[in-house]
Amino acid sequence: MRTVFHVSTVDQLSYVDAKVTNLLADETVPVSHVAVVVDNPAVIDAAESGDGRERVETVLAAGGDDAETAFRVCSNALRGATATLDDLPHGVERASSGVGELTRLQADGWAYIRP
Amino acid sequence: MRTVFHVSTVDQLSYVDAKVTNLLADETVPVSHVAVVVDNPAVIDAAESGDGRERVETVLAAGGDDAETAFRVCSNALRGATATLDDLPHGVERASSGVGELTRLQADGWAYIRP
Amino acid sequence: MRTVFHVSTVDQLSYVDAKVTNLLADETVPVSHVAVVVDNPAVIDAAESGDGRERVETVLAAGGDDAETAFRVCSNALRGATATLDDLPHGVERASSGVGELTRLQADGWAYIRP
Repeated sequence: MRTVFHVSTVDQLSYVDAKVTNLLADETVPVSHVAVVVDNPAVIDAAESGDGRERVETVLAAGGDDAETAFRVCSNALRGATATLDDLPHGVERASSGVGELTRLQADGWAYIRP
Repeated sequence: MRTVFHVSTVDQLSYVDAKVTNLLADETVPVSHVAVVVDNPAVIDAAESGDGRERVETVLAAGGDDAETAFRVCSNALRGATATLDDLPHGVERASSGVGELTRLQADGWAYIRP
Repeated sequence: MRTVFHVSTVDQLSYVDAKVTNLLADETVPVSHVAVVVDNPAVIDAAESGDGRERVETVLAAGGDDAETAFRVCSNALRGATATLDDLPHGVERASSGVGELTRLQADGWAYIRP
């Protein structure tokens, strides 16, 4: 199974890593892919440093050998942020749009969670 | 692909038009239908005039020749609102229930986004 | 059709029963199963007594003879709560994880609603 988490606030960023970790630790649910999609400039800026950056890095490392995790930021939101894609942790990807990515993944069978 | 946005607060109404516009502008995602479903009386009242009304009109016009957009309000929420369906912009439709409409669309393959 | 409501705040608990009732009362949508999934300790504690407990009991009774309703709490959130599963209304179930349950149900075709 595959799950996408839709993050739009700094508060949601502060616990989405725990949600991703809980999902991957749930042995009753075979999860192969998890993505976090961010569509808000303030969250992108929060992901550049400090606690926010650690959350992103935790998500990107959470899959280990068993699952793929991704962290994607909306290109529209990137334009409104101070941080650039290069300022974010290695592995963060640009999505054409947050809402487009959320649509595409669900159309491909991913579950959606608003944390 | 088809996407439904679930709007329950006046704050969500204030930016859902931008989300719909971003989705339809994303050339990497072929979107044929977008719906906004409102299930809260305060949002219905906000959609009657001023900025809220403009947001609704933007959503209804956003598809152009390429996609169909709809704006639907829950009949239960309508009973709690001061505004009536006739007070809302032309094109706004009544849904039997907001949660019923969200269930029906997802069962038919639509993606769900909580903006 | 089947629908899962994802509840993470006490505020969401305070009206999720009305949403479930509205969904089951919508005769245009044939709904056979509704589940509420809670992934937050504060909501679990609120579900132990008073108004919160009544909401849970309303959800569990809402299906009548026509639909099955379930109320499930995340085992991770249970560990953070003061209330135990035995303190909650009869019929409340433990989910291995909230996010796992939300993934499993959507992968099985359930609609997702963030109330």
